[in-house]
Parts: sequence; structure tokens; C-alpha cells
Amino acid sequence: MRASDAPLGVFDSGLGGLTVVRALREALPNERIVYLGDTARVPYGTKGPATIVKYALACAQHLATREVKALVVACNTVSAVAPERLRIELDVPVLGVVEPGARAAVAATTTGRIGVLATAGTIASGAYARAVGQLSTRAEVIGQAAPLLVPLAEEGWVDGDVPRLVVQTYVEPLARANVDVVLLGCTHYPLLRPTIEAEVRARIGAHARVVDSALATAADVRSFLGSRGLERRSAMTGPPVQVLVTDVPRGFRDAASRFLGEDVGDVEQVDL
Amino acid sequence: MRASDAPLGVFDSGLGGLTVVRALREALPNERIVYLGDTARVPYGTKGPATIVKYALACAQHLATREVKALVVACNTVSAVAPERLRIELDVPVLGVVEPGARAAVAATTTGRIGVLATAGTIASGAYARAVGQLSTRAEVIGQAAPLLVPLAEEGWVDGDVPRLVVQTYVEPLARANVDVVLLGCTHYPLLRPTIEAEVRARIGAHARVVDSALATAADVRSFLGSRGLERRSAMTGPPVQVLVTDVPRGFRDAASRFLGEDVGDVEQVDL
Repeated sequence: MRASDAPLGVFDSGLGGLTVVRALREALPNERIVYLGDTARVPYGTKGPATIVKYALACAQHLATREVKALVVACNTVSAVAPERLRIELDVPVLGVVEPGARAAVAATTTGRIGVLATAGTIASGAYARAVGQLSTRAEVIGQAAPLLVPLAEEGWVDGDVPRLVVQTYVEPLARANVDVVLLGCTHYPLLRPTIEAEVRARIGAHARVVDSALATAADVRSFLGSRGLERRSAMTGPPVQVLVTDVPRGFRDAASRFLGEDVGDVEQVDL
Repeated sequence: MRASDAPLGVFDSGLGGLTVVRALREALPNERIVYLGDTARVPYGTKGPATIVKYALACAQHLATREVKALVVACNTVSAVAPERLRIELDVPVLGVVEPGARAAVAATTTGRIGVLATAGTIASGAYARAVGQLSTRAEVIGQAAPLLVPLAEEGWVDGDVPRLVVQTYVEPLARANVDVVLLGCTHYPLLRPTIEAEVRARIGAHARVVDSALATAADVRSFLGSRGLERRSAMTGPPVQVLVTDVPRGFRDAASRFLGEDVGDVEQVDL
């Protein structure tokens, strides 16, 4: 097999990373994708750094055995906490979601005040503040941990009073801090985007913008593959997305299809 | 060491089982307790049965190496899904929370209609319906999965509008089913008890009662130890509760102390 014919590997703690797969499918319709969701150990964002690194390495090493040509870490918590460890331990190029997300936020802000909604682990890492600081000297990050948005997205509670009130609680401190951009710093959050956008408009104002890292990440992956001559050239055979999970809970297919935006097809369970 | 001097082993997916430890401390003030919270892999209740069995065995086998005289499975999901596997694999007596909880519910009901709030895994197992069926031919279980109560309890969101609305959503079908008892079928839920009781009163009526399995479980453990002559007789040295966890996330000590009702002291991290 030519290197360019190899699939892209994508992983996340659970199903959230399928929102990145959805963006990759649009940006790179010819690529095959192997997605690994660590559904047996989701969520990562509430866990400590050593545990996050351990789980991320297990996922990445499993995808390396599937001969992927590049590894997309579609998990903000892992991208924030463990990117260097993954780059050191693996023989495969590693692309994360933090830098693309930071770039999208810097491009969108007028005032330079960027709010980031993310897991407790991502916020505590300070990764977004560092990434934004490398792109702009005048932009500033105001981080807000939003841990309850992960279970809401996984359970499919994405609109109605409960999600609205939870989102309100997390957006309020960003409104007080006068941000003009709210970055969705967790791949689970795009499922709640309509509710988040409504609260951002109501509490911050019509000028405020919500951005996520999925589109920017897909653009990054496309330009990386182009620069290395790794874009797939041969015709695709078989399904374009192969989904691996570490646990198949009840209601999995519905949940996964909500994140991916299309039916997930057959899934394979792997033991890490 | 005499067998009676050995500690009790107690485990749960996360911190919820500390509500059972709290009840054990009151019922058996002379006993030493080793508690293991599998905080690296919490929650169990959203996962599939094979994954739950695998994690439960790892926890139980670790506690067996600590020479416990009995093992209390302070996790409804494990008690519901894996009790026989644990009894087969381990050389130590295993006590669960499902039978005591069912007994408390049967004792409390007048109409025989028992509502159970629990994780998706516990409800799907049908364990409470079976346990109630063995105690009473006229009682009936109406199960309601309440998955969002675990993250709410872990995050400490136990009162206010969000918990109230979430609890309302889960209590409403039980009210329509005319239950007169609501059993808290997950060790995380007692932290939300005031909110649950208020909603049960408002939606079902002042006659309705909320029961949990912690007190009944502690009574079970006491009578088990008494019947085997395993009650501790010598004076206690050192701290009465030793807490082991598989991950130490941020804010762990506050959360653990909320569940235990006293400071957790030093914790030891173990790798399963």
C-alpha cells in the first residue's frame, strides 16, 4: 500500500470527536478514516493529567497498529495535556485541535477578548492561553470549565430548559468578562451549538461569535496532507469511516449518529 | 492478624460509594474500612455489561490483595450486573446494595408500586424488579434511568434550578405511574436527596417516601459480620477509613468529603 492510500486515524475520549470526522469528510471526501472512541473510559476531561496521558497513549498506539498516515487528536483535553508525549512516543505525525481552534478564535475576535468553554482538564492546562499567545500579543483568553456539557451531549439533552440553564451558568462569567468570541473547546459541545449561540446572543450581544475547532482542524489536516504529498489518489473501496470503540453502551448507534451527522455503520469493539 | 481484625473492603465506580461508607461508619464504628473508588473510569452506569464486569473484577481483585474480610459492592450498577461473577471469582464474601435497597423499598411501600431511579445499566439489568419479586408477590417496580444525576452529584450541583429541573424530568414518569416509594438506586443520588424529596412531594404527594440503600446495606453488613463472628474486637489504631482511588482529579478532596460527610484524609492512588 502506498503511504497516501493509508487511512487517517482520529481518536477521542468518546463520541465527540465524530464532529471532527464530519468536518474531515467534507474537507477531504476522498480520505478513509479510522475513528477510535474510548467509550469505556469517557469522559477524560474530569480526570487528572497522568490518567489522561495514559489513556491517550493507549488509543494512539492502537491506531498506529492500523497503519494510519497521520493521527488527528480530536479531543481538546488530550490535545491540551498530552501533545508532546504523543509526538515523542509515536512514529506517526500527530495533529491536534487546540492550535486550529485558537487560530479560528483569533481570526474571529475584534476586541481580542476570547472566551473558551472546555473541560476542567483543558482549562487547567492553560493550553488555549498559550496557543492564542503565540498567535497574537493583543488577544487574551478567559477560560470557563463547562463539565456538565459533556454528559448533556452524550445523553442527547441538547435543547430545552436544562441545557439552556446549564449553558447560561457557564456563559454568564464570559459575558461579565466582555468577550466577543466564545470558542467551543471540546468536541462534544458543537451538539449544543444552537443553545450556546442563543445564550451568547442573549447575554453577550448580537456582535458575539461562537467558533469551534472542527473546520479549522480539517483545513489543517488538508494542508498537512497536501504539503507531504499524502492525499489519497486511488479510488475508495469499502465504507469511508470505520468506527472502533472500547465499549458499546446501550443507545450507542443513535448517539454516535447524532455526532457524526450520518449513520455510523458497523462498529468494532477493541480492548485497550 | 485474626480474621475479625481485617478491614472491610468497599468499592464503587467513583465517589458515590462513600455515602455507603458513611452509613457503615455509623452502624459499625469499630470497623476499619478500605474504600476503592475507580475514579479513572467513572461512570460505570452508562457503560455496557461486559465493560462493567471487567472493571468490577479489577477493583474486587485489588481489594482482595488487601486481605479484607468481606467485600461490599457499594455500586448499584455492579451489584445489578455482576454479583454472581464476583462471587465466583473471589474467595471473599461479597455483599451488594440491590437486595438491601429492595428490602427497604418493600418495607416502605403501601400500594406496592415502587419507583426506582438508577443508572441506565442498572435499569436495563432488571435487577431491582427481580429482587423485589423475591421479597413480595404484590409489589411492582417502575424503573427510570436517571443518568444525569451522576455528573450533577460529582460536580456538586445538588440544588438550584438545574438539579430541580433534571430531577423533575426523571420523577414525572414515576408520578404518572402512581408509585408511593422512590428508591435511590445509585450511591451518587443521596447527595441530591433534598431536591429529590421536594420534587417527589410536589409531583407525587406528601404520602410518597424516598428511600436509599445505604442504611439497609450497613444493617446487612452488621448482621453478616455478627453471624460469622467477624466483628472487630481489638482497639483500632490509625485512621478508620483508608481511601484508594485510580485517579486524583482536581477538586477531588472537596468532592470526596461531600460524599463521606467528613474529611477523607490522605488518599492513595492505585493503578488497576
